[in-house]
Amino acid sequence: MTHAHCCPIRTALLAVAVLIASITAGRADEGMWLPNDPPRRLLKQKYAFDPDDAWLVHLQRSAIRFNGGGSGSFVSADGLVLTNQHVGAGAAQKMSTAEHDYVQNGFLARTHQEELPCHDLELNVLVSIEDVTPRVNAAVRPGMDFEEAAQARRAAMNEIEQESLAKTGLRSDVVTLYHGGLYHLYRYKRYTEVRLVFIPEQDIAFFGGDPDNFEYPRYDLDVCFFRVYENGEPAKIEHYLTWSAAGVSDAELVVVVGNPGATSRLDTVANLTFVRDTLLPMQLNEIRRREIMLATYSQQSAENARRAQRLLFGCRNRRKVSLETLAGLQDPAIFHKKVEEETSLRAAVAKDPKLASADGGAWDEVAEAVKRLASLYVRYHLLEGAAALNTNLFFDARALLRLAEESQKQNAQRLREYRESNLPSLKQSLFSTAPIYKDLETARLVDSLSMLVEMEGADDPLVQRILAGRSPQERAEELVAGTKLDRAEYRRQLAEGGLLAMEQSDDPMIEVARLVDPAARAIREQLENCVDEPLREAYGKIANARFALAGTNLYPDATFTLRLSFGTVRGYHQGGQPLPPWTVIAGAYAHQAKHDAQPPFKLPRSWMEHQGDLNMKTPLDFVSTNDIIGGNSGSPVVNRRGELVGLIFDGNRYSPVWRFVYDDVHGRAISVDARAIVEALKKVYGATELVQELGQ
Amino acid sequence: MTHAHCCPIRTALLAVAVLIASITAGRADEGMWLPNDPPRRLLKQKYAFDPDDAWLVHLQRSAIRFNGGGSGSFVSADGLVLTNQHVGAGAAQKMSTAEHDYVQNGFLARTHQEELPCHDLELNVLVSIEDVTPRVNAAVRPGMDFEEAAQARRAAMNEIEQESLAKTGLRSDVVTLYHGGLYHLYRYKRYTEVRLVFIPEQDIAFFGGDPDNFEYPRYDLDVCFFRVYENGEPAKIEHYLTWSAAGVSDAELVVVVGNPGATSRLDTVANLTFVRDTLLPMQLNEIRRREIMLATYSQQSAENARRAQRLLFGCRNRRKVSLETLAGLQDPAIFHKKVEEETSLRAAVAKDPKLASADGGAWDEVAEAVKRLASLYVRYHLLEGAAALNTNLFFDARALLRLAEESQKQNAQRLREYRESNLPSLKQSLFSTAPIYKDLETARLVDSLSMLVEMEGADDPLVQRILAGRSPQERAEELVAGTKLDRAEYRRQLAEGGLLAMEQSDDPMIEVARLVDPAARAIREQLENCVDEPLREAYGKIANARFALAGTNLYPDATFTLRLSFGTVRGYHQGGQPLPPWTVIAGAYAHQAKHDAQPPFKLPRSWMEHQGDLNMKTPLDFVSTNDIIGGNSGSPVVNRRGELVGLIFDGNRYSPVWRFVYDDVHGRAISVDARAIVEALKKVYGATELVQELGQ
Repeated sequence: MTHAHCCPIRTALLAVAVLIASITAGRADEGMWLPNDPPRRLLKQKYAFDPDDAWLVHLQRSAIRFNGGGSGSFVSADGLVLTNQHVGAGAAQKMSTAEHDYVQNGFLARTHQEELPCHDLELNVLVSIEDVTPRVNAAVRPGMDFEEAAQARRAAMNEIEQESLAKTGLRSDVVTLYHGGLYHLYRYKRYTEVRLVFIPEQDIAFFGGDPDNFEYPRYDLDVCFFRVYENGEPAKIEHYLTWSAAGVSDAELVVVVGNPGATSRLDTVANLTFVRDTLLPMQLNEIRRREIMLATYSQQSAENARRAQRLLFGCRNRRKVSLETLAGLQDPAIFHKKVEEETSLRAAVAKDPKLASADGGAWDEVAEAVKRLASLYVRYHLLEGAAALNTNLFFDARALLRLAEESQKQNAQRLREYRESNLPSLKQSLFSTAPIYKDLETARLVDSLSMLVEMEGADDPLVQRILAGRSPQERAEELVAGTKLDRAEYRRQLAEGGLLAMEQSDDPMIEVARLVDPAARAIREQLENCVDEPLREAYGKIANARFALAGTNLYPDATFTLRLSFGTVRGYHQGGQPLPPWTVIAGAYAHQAKHDAQPPFKLPRSWMEHQGDLNMKTPLDFVSTNDIIGGNSGSPVVNRRGELVGLIFDGNRYSPVWRFVYDDVHGRAISVDARAIVEALKKVYGATELVQELGQ
Repeated sequence: MTHAHCCPIRTALLAVAVLIASITAGRADEGMWLPNDPPRRLLKQKYAFDPDDAWLVHLQRSAIRFNGGGSGSFVSADGLVLTNQHVGAGAAQKMSTAEHDYVQNGFLARTHQEELPCHDLELNVLVSIEDVTPRVNAAVRPGMDFEEAAQARRAAMNEIEQESLAKTGLRSDVVTLYHGGLYHLYRYKRYTEVRLVFIPEQDIAFFGGDPDNFEYPRYDLDVCFFRVYENGEPAKIEHYLTWSAAGVSDAELVVVVGNPGATSRLDTVANLTFVRDTLLPMQLNEIRRREIMLATYSQQSAENARRAQRLLFGCRNRRKVSLETLAGLQDPAIFHKKVEEETSLRAAVAKDPKLASADGGAWDEVAEAVKRLASLYVRYHLLEGAAALNTNLFFDARALLRLAEESQKQNAQRLREYRESNLPSLKQSLFSTAPIYKDLETARLVDSLSMLVEMEGADDPLVQRILAGRSPQERAEELVAGTKLDRAEYRRQLAEGGLLAMEQSDDPMIEVARLVDPAARAIREQLENCVDEPLREAYGKIANARFALAGTNLYPDATFTLRLSFGTVRGYHQGGQPLPPWTVIAGAYAHQAKHDAQPPFKLPRSWMEHQGDLNMKTPLDFVSTNDIIGGNSGSPVVNRRGELVGLIFDGNRYSPVWRFVYDDVHGRAISVDARAIVEALKKVYGATELVQELGQ
């Protein structure tokens, strides 16, 4: 399953995707509910379930957001954190070397002393939510144009966040919900001292590899444990999840507590048509070229393969997500559903004189904004999205340059990601001591410079200035060889030098960042003013019309913030065949045998050696109807008593299109069963201390 | 190295690429010379070499064209044919099964009885060349517009070919040379009874795999032997190549005798800009998506991998060719050279009043035609190129439909590939008994239908009719499951039923062919009239201007017909490092060790078992400056005595851009050394009979 928010910098376009939508719910198990506004009536009706505030607070405080993408939960009083291997593998990759590959071979710390410090992980725990809608709305005064409105809103949000940080010391984010229907201030406790406790071998965490990704039945132990520290000691945690003794049963209500990244369920047909026929195909072309570039690099040697493995996994994962999303949108049955929804909503709005005059033009406004997006997208994506310079070395160069420039401005005027309250997180990433491999960065840059030439043409003046008379290959080699930005100490030193240091730097990557940035900033501003803001306003109107017509029981589109999703454990049919609600450990061995143990269908040695010790009937992975999306990876799945029964790690092939439309006829979330985690820790890994800490 | 002409049907667009150009030569070892017009003066001056007619005829008659793509040569009086493994592997794939995979595991026949019959190979030997320029030109009368001219020329060519076939029984093709400066009638002896004699394991034929493809130093034994039969007996051959006793030495003159597929060396800057910024990037996107689709299919099981292996190899090979070609065009140093050439040629033309008035407008005419091509290309490629329905089942459906329709017309009026003289070759392919795997065809069709939706939009009326209300996945499954075209006998039966059978057929793939064909024919006609013909005329003018200014010593662009290329064995520098003129067998083992014997750097078991038997100093692969391009794969390399010294199998990374501009500073052809072939046959494979037949 994809991580949300893995990009080095939150881009404006992300906002387009993230902040668009909200939808009437009540159909099936649809809904990603705010922790402070669960669907109480619905739960009572459908599940005879009436959670109290203590239950809600307990889950909220036990849940973890991985700031780099993904979810998790506390599972002991000593700061033990459970998440997916594929969420934690990025951190494990950064601490690996040619000699120790913790991603492929796994790792287990038997004592606190053996735990391995992470380079740059940041974990967030949601402490409080405060409604700041009136203050944000007050900043936008009647008569302001799109540009002024966007600027005023940004200024208000930056200020609120900075005040909150100064007052509480907590990470403070203003979150836009219901397309501006609500603005909530989220305060998080940040944990930045994080150590790796346990990660299994890639071959069992991702057993079945790319072919099985987004498929079911599955046989993966996609788990990983970290521990958060404070001042060098394991953090003392009040709220953590305990293991369910019974485990899940068929048709049981289960709750997913996690951070879905982005949904766009309000997208109009015009917007969806653009996504289906233009945006996704374009993104897929780029994902595929990167996948092949990384695969080619990886084939050169085992060490190359090790260096590129997480990037390659990310590409393949995104390719599958995008392909299945596109397949969903290309399915007339699914698309037609969206067309019908829109037709009936527009008809209802037209019938209501008040709605018709206030919100009736919203669909045309969306269509207009999407047209502008279509004309701006490529250049925006290349420059501001940095797709043209796809290397960490450039991302860091630009972050340093902008940090210096934005720091000169009033907080209220800054680009969102350089607001004062975000700087600790930004610097955590910018000054990471994780290794950077220049050969890999060169391969990435050659490919992306070549893409720049392809998309803008070799005769484009900016392209020519970027290439400086060289071929993409030569230029990439020259830039990467010449820069010192691979050294964290050098980045820190440049940052301390402020604007002057940036203006005077002759580091070639900084020079390129200076060259590109005016154009990148210009297109970003254009997109924010001509696309983002009009879309926000138009979708706000559509959301408003839905509110007015459908009444309560609405949930906002996903915003990579904490949500609750309620569903049931349930099998389904595929190609006429019934699929069971869960698989068992025996199935993993059978799956291996069926594929002659050829990778990626080859279990790790540890699982072969301990095959005889395992209880073969232990449930391994289960499916449920919970409404999830990328970002939910690592989310705990709890029963109505709030006990841990599973760990979300994937959705099936029908789930990626949930970004636009939820459906539980075929679509399913896939979890690791909590019982399999304990069984494997005991029997395969002999992780006695860890099992004990889990109370098992 | 890529095969030329692997498409099931020669498309009109191919003509655009193939028939464009001719260039002044004399620079370095540039030139793909006509066998009836070798550069005698140049050879005398540079190499003191003056081949007589007997030498030329001997080479011409010894050389073989693989009609499906690739080159080869006779190497014994009993019809033994030498070519590359990667040219012969397609035939070996077709005779393989789940139980016997001749591509992966290789094959050796020790007796004629053991030789394995091929399903559909057609080998051509050039018997004669006749100049028919006056007759073709006479057909085009002054005052005709582009459409009439194209039609008149096609009619004349179809007639000449049909007359020749009727008179001689030989395959007869009119070849357009120098963009219509000359029309030559080529007569070939066709061999269609072909059997497989020897093919080595994929792991040594393609040792180093995709990472090493188009790289040097190399360590590949990319060889394969077939035998042609006539009436069930090995064919008796007068002209065949004998093995050189001495082998090549450094700086020696070597001659490549083969069938280069297509070059476009006359392309104007406007045309090249289109190729660089639009066509190649678009083609690469498609190649990459197919590569990933096939890789995904292959990962499902070992049998899937076997079924898709040649398609996947083809994709990866084309991806590398296209990437390196694009890299060449994106190199300002190379592109600038073309700009300068054009500038000086146009200046020279402008200075000459006669040329200026006759040919001076040609560059603008090309630019205009290219603009029209840009606007027509996508739909042309999807429909007439059949990229939207990328399955053999559709290719066959359309060939059957058109065969029925075109057979109703006068020969002169038919689409080129359905002219009477081409029908034997067409039927050889159409009625092939090679296995068709419906699961693989489904995967291909899902992907290509999805691409159709992406490129034309889901709301396009023809797209909607093709999909018939289904998703690409559902529609592909339905079409492939319903068709019977996977059975050769059914295809033959339908063909015998003629037009009525085609009109009445309810085979779903035939129904789709009937649905698509009017639009496909229309866009083909549009492209032939508005692009091909104007380009042919404009490039004819440019060729004429070059003739007039540069005098003799010109060679025509490659046309997948027999050419001679003269070059020298010579190492080169890459990244500042000198690379030797050849590698030796010891290098293969060292290369394996350097990569820890990880595939694709793993030698086959036979080579490990017989390591001690081999003479480690035997030259394995060598590089030379011969001017080659895709289609030359399998070409014999001979010394000035006409003895075989090597076998072309690849070019280095700087060679694919030779399609547009030759350069021998870095660019090299790569050959298997003839000595390595004998050494391996003797020591690794114990192929005593074969070695004896080679006179070794």
